[in-house]
Amino acid sequence: MSTPWQMARRAERLNPSTIREILKLTERPGIVSLAGGLPSPESFPIEAMRVATERVLRDTPKEALQYAASEGFAPLREWVAAEMATHGVVADASQVLITTGSQQGLDLVGKVLIDPGSRVAVESPTYLGALQAFAPYEPEFVAVEGDDEGPLPDSLSAAVQGGAKPRFVYLLPNFQNPSGRCVAAPRRLALVQRARELGLPIVEDNPYGDLWFDAPPPPPLSASAGDGAVYLGSFSKVLAPGLRLGYVIAPKALYPKLLQAKQAADLHTPGFNQRVVHEVIKGGFLKTHVPTIRARYKAQRDAMAAALTAHMPEGVRWNAPVGGMFFWLTLPPQIDATALLPQAVEAGMAYVPGATFFPNGGPGQHANTLRLSFVTATPAQIATAVAALATLLRAVGA
Amino acid sequence: MSTPWQMARRAERLNPSTIREILKLTERPGIVSLAGGLPSPESFPIEAMRVATERVLRDTPKEALQYAASEGFAPLREWVAAEMATHGVVADASQVLITTGSQQGLDLVGKVLIDPGSRVAVESPTYLGALQAFAPYEPEFVAVEGDDEGPLPDSLSAAVQGGAKPRFVYLLPNFQNPSGRCVAAPRRLALVQRARELGLPIVEDNPYGDLWFDAPPPPPLSASAGDGAVYLGSFSKVLAPGLRLGYVIAPKALYPKLLQAKQAADLHTPGFNQRVVHEVIKGGFLKTHVPTIRARYKAQRDAMAAALTAHMPEGVRWNAPVGGMFFWLTLPPQIDATALLPQAVEAGMAYVPGATFFPNGGPGQHANTLRLSFVTATPAQIATAVAALATLLRAVGA
Repeated sequence: MSTPWQMARRAERLNPSTIREILKLTERPGIVSLAGGLPSPESFPIEAMRVATERVLRDTPKEALQYAASEGFAPLREWVAAEMATHGVVADASQVLITTGSQQGLDLVGKVLIDPGSRVAVESPTYLGALQAFAPYEPEFVAVEGDDEGPLPDSLSAAVQGGAKPRFVYLLPNFQNPSGRCVAAPRRLALVQRARELGLPIVEDNPYGDLWFDAPPPPPLSASAGDGAVYLGSFSKVLAPGLRLGYVIAPKALYPKLLQAKQAADLHTPGFNQRVVHEVIKGGFLKTHVPTIRARYKAQRDAMAAALTAHMPEGVRWNAPVGGMFFWLTLPPQIDATALLPQAVEAGMAYVPGATFFPNGGPGQHANTLRLSFVTATPAQIATAVAALATLLRAVGA
Repeated sequence: MSTPWQMARRAERLNPSTIREILKLTERPGIVSLAGGLPSPESFPIEAMRVATERVLRDTPKEALQYAASEGFAPLREWVAAEMATHGVVADASQVLITTGSQQGLDLVGKVLIDPGSRVAVESPTYLGALQAFAPYEPEFVAVEGDDEGPLPDSLSAAVQGGAKPRFVYLLPNFQNPSGRCVAAPRRLALVQRARELGLPIVEDNPYGDLWFDAPPPPPLSASAGDGAVYLGSFSKVLAPGLRLGYVIAPKALYPKLLQAKQAADLHTPGFNQRVVHEVIKGGFLKTHVPTIRARYKAQRDAMAAALTAHMPEGVRWNAPVGGMFFWLTLPPQIDATALLPQAVEAGMAYVPGATFFPNGGPGQHANTLRLSFVTATPAQIATAVAALATLLRAVGA
């Protein structure tokens, strides 16, 4: 059938989210999904939300329901600046832009910084949502290689020398999605130093930094990168993702354009949500709430580590993460995790194939990797699902 | 100072919103602003919101606070499809995409349909927020001329003949922002017919359609355009803008790409907001609530019409709008409304200069036009502000 609609070239770079399609598949009863990165709903502060919404609708209903500033709710921006100061990031509230989830921060960064053909350096593997946010702006992704300590400074140099200088390098130092890896302090400093020498800006994404189990992670890259970094944060993992509340902290050279892109994108993030979240957190709620999430996720991490140790065949490797939400598994080289997924669902569990997290990843590349989330399922469900996966892996020759 | 940040070319097309900058200027006490298109906060359904938030947090708190489908909350999508059917628009819930305000709908449409250099046909004047949403995708705007009945079909033909076919024509048939003009039924059919003949897709924006004062407007263009139109709607004007809730109804040829762009932009619109709004409206609340807004705005429209008639010098022209939120004034040709604005603020009132609403508008073009909103101020404030503007206009020779 003929259609009058002609798509923009960038629309070719938009593709369905593999993870979201898998999530749909696994919504049917009886499947234990270790696929999605859904925070445990048991951690949602429902009573605090109830009290806060009641107060906002009692004290400032008209302000909360009216159009509002594109920059965000001023007291929330001040809260963010003060909170960042405790992590060593010196930023004024005027540098804070409240976003509709940190995913929007990625979209705005892409919109303002990426021209068609621009090179953008990303970790390999990296957060799929970032690849999806950047892709419609038609960048060429350059993979930054890493080791167990994190991305390699020499790989930043290689990325810069391999062609036009990348517009930025996108880094997730804390409990990275999908690898779970936390970058140690010396590597952080080395990366910031090398990026500065190269004149390479850093886009630092930190949705998981508060979810540490034993000790807090080292200070963010932004604590030492000055005007050379933009920082993305989120309330999705410490409060609730359904509020869609994140923030960007941007250097003065970048902030006005991000703000204008934000105005064009959705005018402003819902003021009601911003005021409710500020009401929840302003008295120090997160200081008592986040430790309960850490304890919950640590127990789930322990359950998954124990189940993996108990059940997995010898050829399967993983590192126990010290925070965040994910285990990253490497299977024997002949096993294709994407091809195996339907059988896993048949066996009652789901994961995300690792290949999907690699920039420029074609079929077969990194096919023997997968990501398991330990935050949505209970320890008992985790044990069952990991055992089922192990049985399946043995059946296919692992 | 040197900076490592290199902006994308499209960032040059991002500019501060004139209206939002003026709004900041007029926040100081003592100014009656007729500038912003802020719905009257008196119309916000605070009690209904209170009841609905309480219910959502009692009955489905975990679902409301968790990540959710990018398409939107299914019952809300069904509500939208059913509501549209009463306006003659046949659409399945599967064609409804919930957006973070209808501004996001504009951004997604631009992202999916506009290549750099694509021609996009727009009314002249047109909604500034649409120009701002489309601009970063680097279109060439083509002005569609109109008369008092609305845009001219022959001007659609001219837009198509003047170069490459525009990717779409953007139309606001109901109580247009800024002109207040409502397109009559025969003109609507003529526009749809001509667009179909030309193979020119229609992007129909309808934020104000429910705000009629005497009789409902004719059916939307989308009621007769079939797969040749995408429709944008909003809850901002009938409930509250601070919730940032809008929707797009898209033909099947377009929906998947809009959905993927939505995923990349902010994953999904806050599920909490979607469930609260659905809880508010599901029992027919708008059937009794919207008439109260109509009555309120009609009284304010009457107050502004009376004040204009009583105070304005002879050389100033306007048409009383039959719905929506705005009067559009044409001043004597020698008066520049942009240049005059600081004096108006000095005199205690504010408006938006009309030049800002024209595509490709340079300095001086349509300088003698301005927009007045009658929905934020009270009738008494409207009378005072219009009188002050009239005094100023006389002082500068009108």
